[in-house]
Order: sequence, then C-alpha cells, then structure tokens
Amino acid sequence: AFGVLSAKEVYCDAVLEDKKRRTEGPITDSDPMRLRMEAFVKGLQNRIVSDIEQLDGKQFTRTAWERSEGGEGITCVLQDGNVFEKAGVGISIVYGQLPKAAVEQMRHDRGKEISADGPVPFFAAGISLVIHPHNPNAPTVHLNYRYFEIENPDGTPKMWWFGGGSDLTPSYLFEDDAIHFHQVLKDGCDKYDKKYYSTFKQWCDKYFFIKHRGEARGLGGIFFDDLDDKPADEIFSFIKEMGNRFSLSYIPIMKKRMNMKYTNEMREWQQLRRGRYVEFNLVWDRGTKFGLQTPGARIEAILMTLPLTARWEYMKEPEEGSREEDLQEVLKNPRDWIPLN
Amino acid sequence: AFGVLSAKEVYCDAVLEDKKRRTEGPITDSDPMRLRMEAFVKGLQNRIVSDIEQLDGKQFTRTAWERSEGGEGITCVLQDGNVFEKAGVGISIVYGQLPKAAVEQMRHDRGKEISADGPVPFFAAGISLVIHPHNPNAPTVHLNYRYFEIENPDGTPKMWWFGGGSDLTPSYLFEDDAIHFHQVLKDGCDKYDKKYYSTFKQWCDKYFFIKHRGEARGLGGIFFDDLDDKPADEIFSFIKEMGNRFSLSYIPIMKKRMNMKYTNEMREWQQLRRGRYVEFNLVWDRGTKFGLQTPGARIEAILMTLPLTARWEYMKEPEEGSREEDLQEVLKNPRDWIPLN
Repeated sequence: AFGVLSAKEVYCDAVLEDKKRRTEGPITDSDPMRLRMEAFVKGLQNRIVSDIEQLDGKQFTRTAWERSEGGEGITCVLQDGNVFEKAGVGISIVYGQLPKAAVEQMRHDRGKEISADGPVPFFAAGISLVIHPHNPNAPTVHLNYRYFEIENPDGTPKMWWFGGGSDLTPSYLFEDDAIHFHQVLKDGCDKYDKKYYSTFKQWCDKYFFIKHRGEARGLGGIFFDDLDDKPADEIFSFIKEMGNRFSLSYIPIMKKRMNMKYTNEMREWQQLRRGRYVEFNLVWDRGTKFGLQTPGARIEAILMTLPLTARWEYMKEPEEGSREEDLQEVLKNPRDWIPLN
Repeated sequence: AFGVLSAKEVYCDAVLEDKKRRTEGPITDSDPMRLRMEAFVKGLQNRIVSDIEQLDGKQFTRTAWERSEGGEGITCVLQDGNVFEKAGVGISIVYGQLPKAAVEQMRHDRGKEISADGPVPFFAAGISLVIHPHNPNAPTVHLNYRYFEIENPDGTPKMWWFGGGSDLTPSYLFEDDAIHFHQVLKDGCDKYDKKYYSTFKQWCDKYFFIKHRGEARGLGGIFFDDLDDKPADEIFSFIKEMGNRFSLSYIPIMKKRMNMKYTNEMREWQQLRRGRYVEFNLVWDRGTKFGLQTPGARIEAILMTLPLTARWEYMKEPEEGSREEDLQEVLKNPRDWIPLN
C-alpha cells in the first residue's frame, strides 16, 4: 500500500535511524531529542551510582536488559549496603506502540489532542531512583525525569513533553534537611522560570499524598508532568539542571545523618514509615500501577523502589509530644519549607 | 411529598426496624436475612477468636466501632503473639446508600439489573480474617463471607447475594496440608451442591492470582461472589456450614506446623512471601481497593490483613531443587489437590 506505512513500520523507522546515529556518534545538540535525552539519563545514572557507591563503599549490581519490541534499560541496585538498605537507580529507553485505549485515555484525562485512531508510535526515555538508607535519621529520596514523544510517520515528534521531579521522605523531621533539599530545587527552577518552583512544589504535595491515610508521603520537593510550555531545548536544559542537582540535594543530608546514633524504637518507627511508602507506591503511584498492568513489563525494575523491609502494626499511633508525632504532624499539614516565590 | 421517601429516609427505616428487632431479640429464622447474617458473623467471630487465642496463649485486642451513617463493626487483632505474628478477625455491618456511579458499575461489570437512577439503599454484613503465623512452616490463612442486599422502599430486599471463600498461603509446601484444607472445604460444599467445590476452587485460583508476578497468591481454596442461585435460606445454610468449618480446616494444620524447627533462611523466605501477600492485597484485591477509595472508611480495619513485617529483595530467585523452588513451582502452576468432582 503505497504511501501508507503500518504502525509497526513507522515505529521501526525511528528505531533504525536512532540506531544508526548511535553507532556513528557522538550525539550532539542537532540530534533528535530522543537521543539527547537517552545520552543524558545514561550519564546521570553513572554519576549518581558513583556518588552513592562512594558514600556506601559497596557496589551496585548492574543489569542491562533489552525489550524485544525495541528499547533497553539498565537497572542498578545496591542492596543491604553499609549505608543504604536498598538503592535502585534505573534508566529505560522504550520504542513502542500506544494502543488505541491509551490514546483515548490521554485525550480524556490529560487533554492530549492526538489525531490518530489506531495505535501510534511513541518513545519514552527516563531515569528513576529510590534510595532507602539504614539509619532512621537519614531520609529516603526519590527522583524521576522522563521525556515522552509521539511520532509522525516521518519520525519527527508529533507531540512531546517532559515530566518528573524529586522528593524527600524522612522518618524523623530535621527542618534543616527539608530547607536544604527544597532550596537546591528552587535554585534550579528559578534559573528557568520564576513560577516553576511554587507550581511544582504544590503539585508534588498533591501528587505524593497517601489519600487513604490523609497524609503526605514525605516532605515533598517538586513534581510536574506534561511540561511543554517552552521550546523543547529550553525544557531539556531545565531537566538537565534538575537531574544534575540530585547529588547536591541529597548527599550533604546523608553525610550529616548516616552516622547518627539511633535506638531500636527509632528503627521500628522507620519500618512503619517504610510500610506507608509501600502503600503509596502500590496503591496510588500512577507509574507503578501502569507498569504492573503492562503485559511483559520488567516487574523487578518497577518494584526496585520498594524498601528491603517494611512493617504494619494495627492502630499504632505515635506518643504525644514525641519526635514521631512531629513527623506525623508535618505529613498531615504539608509546609512551605522556603518562601514559594 | 406523599408516597415518595427520600433515599435517606428509606435507609433509616431499615436501620430503625432492625434496631427494634435487635432490642426485642432473639433473632430467629423468620427475621430478615440482614439480622440473621449479622448474628451469625458475630457468633463465628467469637468462636474463631477463642480458638486462635487458645492456640496462641495471648488475647486479641477488640475494638468496637460505629459508623455515624448507620452500621457497626468489631475488629479483633492479635499482634506479635506466641504463635501468630498477626491475626485479624473483623466483622462489619453496614447500612448505606449506593451512589449512582456504584450502581452503574455493578450493572456494567456484574450484570446487576438494579432499576434505580439515584442512590439506592443497601446493607452489607460480613466476616473477614487473615492470620499470619510466626513459624515459616505454618501457612497464612484468609477467610471472608458476606451478605449484600439492595432494598425496596418498604425495606424488603430488592436484590441480594452472598459471596466469600477461604484460602491457604504457605511459605513452604506441605501437600498434606493443602489436601486437608481443600478436603474440608469440599466436604462442606458437597452437602449443598456437587458443582460448588469445583466451580469455586477454580474461581479462587483465578481470583487470588498476582498478575504482575504470574503466580498464585497461595494454594487456593474456594472463592465465589454474586451467589443467588438457590433460595436465600439455603445459601445462608451453606455460608454457615463453610464459616463453621474454618477451625476444622486450619487449626489441625497449625498444630502440626507451629512447633517445627526453622532456620533464619526459612524466615527470610517467609518475609519475601509476605511481600507478595502485600502486593496482592494492595494492587489486586477488589475489596481492599474499594475500601481504600471509600471516603471515611476505617483504614486500620481494612489493612489489618497486612502482615506485621515484609521484605522485598531485587531479583531474588529460589535455588534450583530447593524447597523454596517447590513452592514457587506450585504457585506458577496451580494444582487440583483433590479430584474436583
């Protein structure tokens, strides 16, 4: 059928072109955003893994995998280390077909005007990490940045957007840590748009909320999705800025907290908070839910975000006036750690 | 408005009439099924709690609660006992209004011909339990039996059905235990309908399946919903038969397993299996999902089914030829423990 490419062929074209460019290398600013984002997340993964290994002294296990349909990923996990209970840093590059139902849902839920009836070729590249330290004084951290593109028959993007963010989830409240973490994020945001931090900080509080508990997952950070309000180059610079700020936002906090003394009771409270983390990820997190319902998804890569251990006690409430209650109070009433504007 | 009762008034009528009958007492076979089921689940809860306490030596914590909208419940939890890590046995009696969206969903998903546009008054009574023992040789067990009714303006049931079942989830495979558990259930089913066991056994395998892992939660048992194929009195007798068989199905297994020796490695495998239990309950269980999305639900009662502790290791696979692999094999390929017919 002359002039009409099947969805499969269209999508293979993008795969093949990109493969050719990867072999020729190096990837430059004139390459498609697909390849630029891929190169960025791979580099960022290496740098973060190296920073975490330096702190811990133990090496990550690296698993590279390929999708038969097109795409690949690298999952790095450090388990039962000296400093970290479990740290997972993964990247994935996916070339696929968006089924009609998914197109419909994007149109309905997120107002995406995708003019196509059948499956449409898409590309997604992202980095995702969750790090759970042993010491209950030290916070869990999460980061995710991703680029999503829907393609025209000629392989150019018909539609694209960026999404992501980073947020902090301690078991014990240290206001200094919250302020430092938010300030590093705000400084990055402010370089690109004075409205970004306040918008994305509030979006984060709203998204990482455990609805059935009526409490936030943690002390927040930033979160955004469907970001396409500026030229792609500019938003990509912003994404790089924020990704590159990860170690600056988290490592200084770890250095202050990782060697603090703690009691068994503190460790038990941390285990209960880990349980809440599991509840959020399995019940409410869109990405996890989507992944678990995708046939053929790499389940171990999706669930690397779960802590090594967790605990659920019936009707356990923190004691009045305790440090545990201080944390709970701030989860029930999310604060602005630094002025929003 | 003469002749037209608001949904609120209709529903209050059933609440008030039932309250009057409870005060007069005793509840007999000529009372509405609502009250008969309520009396049954309360009695069964007491008997099961007493049987478990006798085995453990530690007492359950009992919490009675009321719903301001009508209804009540009793949640009994034994935590960190001598034999049991966590055992929750709850009953709930709910008078409520089914919102239009819920009516629509029942019509769509389950073919319920509910002829009403607005909210409709409903009643639900049920018993639910999950018991997690310490010893990794001893299995977790789950049971749930419930009665659901949608009412006419005069308080008589417009539509009713029973649902429930019971299933066994060990960390280590003892075929004798699986056979015993299934045989006790089959003997009960066979008294009422020769097709029940085979139908409900297969329904159970299908329902308690962790789709994203491609494995069953455990060794199965029975599960059914929307049961209304015989007169209500007859199905109620069947429900009582099955509820009353709980201790017979589970206690003999516990007595054989609760004092067996075990290693730290076995305990660790058990913790990983607990993680899978959490995954099923939070990601796939319809009841839990429905509960967590219900505003004002008693979250602690819903989540009493979660184990005290759980564990997630990245890419952990049992060793070839190990007892852990034996269990995994049978979860991936559910067996008929006894002939189906």
